[in-house]
Amino acid sequence: MNPQQQLEQRGQFRITVFEEEYFQGKSCEFTFECQNILERDFRKIRSIKVENGPWVGYEYPEFQGQQFILEKGDYPRYQAWSGNSSYRTEHMLSFKPIKCANHSDSKITLYECEDFMGRKFEMCDDYPSLQAMGWCSKEVPSIKVNSGSWVGYQFPGYRGYQYIFERDRRQGEYRCYNEYGTQAHTNQIQSMRRIQQ
Amino acid sequence: MNPQQQLEQRGQFRITVFEEEYFQGKSCEFTFECQNILERDFRKIRSIKVENGPWVGYEYPEFQGQQFILEKGDYPRYQAWSGNSSYRTEHMLSFKPIKCANHSDSKITLYECEDFMGRKFEMCDDYPSLQAMGWCSKEVPSIKVNSGSWVGYQFPGYRGYQYIFERDRRQGEYRCYNEYGTQAHTNQIQSMRRIQQ
Repeated sequence: MNPQQQLEQRGQFRITVFEEEYFQGKSCEFTFECQNILERDFRKIRSIKVENGPWVGYEYPEFQGQQFILEKGDYPRYQAWSGNSSYRTEHMLSFKPIKCANHSDSKITLYECEDFMGRKFEMCDDYPSLQAMGWCSKEVPSIKVNSGSWVGYQFPGYRGYQYIFERDRRQGEYRCYNEYGTQAHTNQIQSMRRIQQ
Repeated sequence: MNPQQQLEQRGQFRITVFEEEYFQGKSCEFTFECQNILERDFRKIRSIKVENGPWVGYEYPEFQGQQFILEKGDYPRYQAWSGNSSYRTEHMLSFKPIKCANHSDSKITLYECEDFMGRKFEMCDDYPSLQAMGWCSKEVPSIKVNSGSWVGYQFPGYRGYQYIFERDRRQGEYRCYNEYGTQAHTNQIQSMRRIQQ
């Protein structure tokens, strides 16, 4: 067992999912990742309590589709975690812990072009509007995570599609938008923030 | 003309609202507050470009109802600014600039009870989960803004109902939840962040 698995064993990560809204109906607690909630005889996840996080939820089994950041707290309805309310997915069928989140030591570099080319900008803080910070575009073509883990959003103010960027995944290197997530159709990212433990 | 009005005059604040999604149809640019967009012969606001912010939008005329934080960037559909997707309001009928936002110098104090009683917690940073930070409740009964302006959210991760807290409004003092906003029915606040210029 490696140190990260030991952390999980000690309850460093803990999430409870419920089949009905407002923490009703059948429930199941997890301290490890879940590849497919349907295999646990769940029909659907309609509410969530995160006792210790952060976690990332996915629309489809095996960590595919839309991504949803889940930090400590109560999520009584799917609207509390789903970012893109125009595409009314109620699915969250797999989830796993985010192990490298570090709210006080997080650094990320944004690049003007794909493959880490062009001008770059280093960030250590949360930015609800990248354009207000000085980023001239609504798009972010490539990204390197130097430390911690981050979430980027399609719209300003942390709204719309969510993309989780982790130092410990892909060595923190995201060369083009189709590496951001399986549902990414553009590189539009207008806000970005650190993920909290 | 006071200094703040001079700032507005110089285009410090600038927002363009559109009657159709994706910045189509009739549009109107504002550098001052708008008490009621219906009086400008608009039927509805369906998309927004914020050239210089921040602004706060309101569900109803005269700054009533749900609040929506609007920082610099593009909002092509109402889902990009509306926080509570279960209550499917498309209305944003009034809006005004937030004059005291200061992303790098913001401080707020949360209190365990109404009227600034009980234990307190001072914050200078963004917290996507107040509970992860150590706040033991899902509720925040009273709030003092020491500097800058802030937005609190019903759910973790900056989702759900939004409440704007400004140093320059009510002298920064919010003694109970019905001072948070005209739509506030509870004091549930699970995440909170600074507002960016």
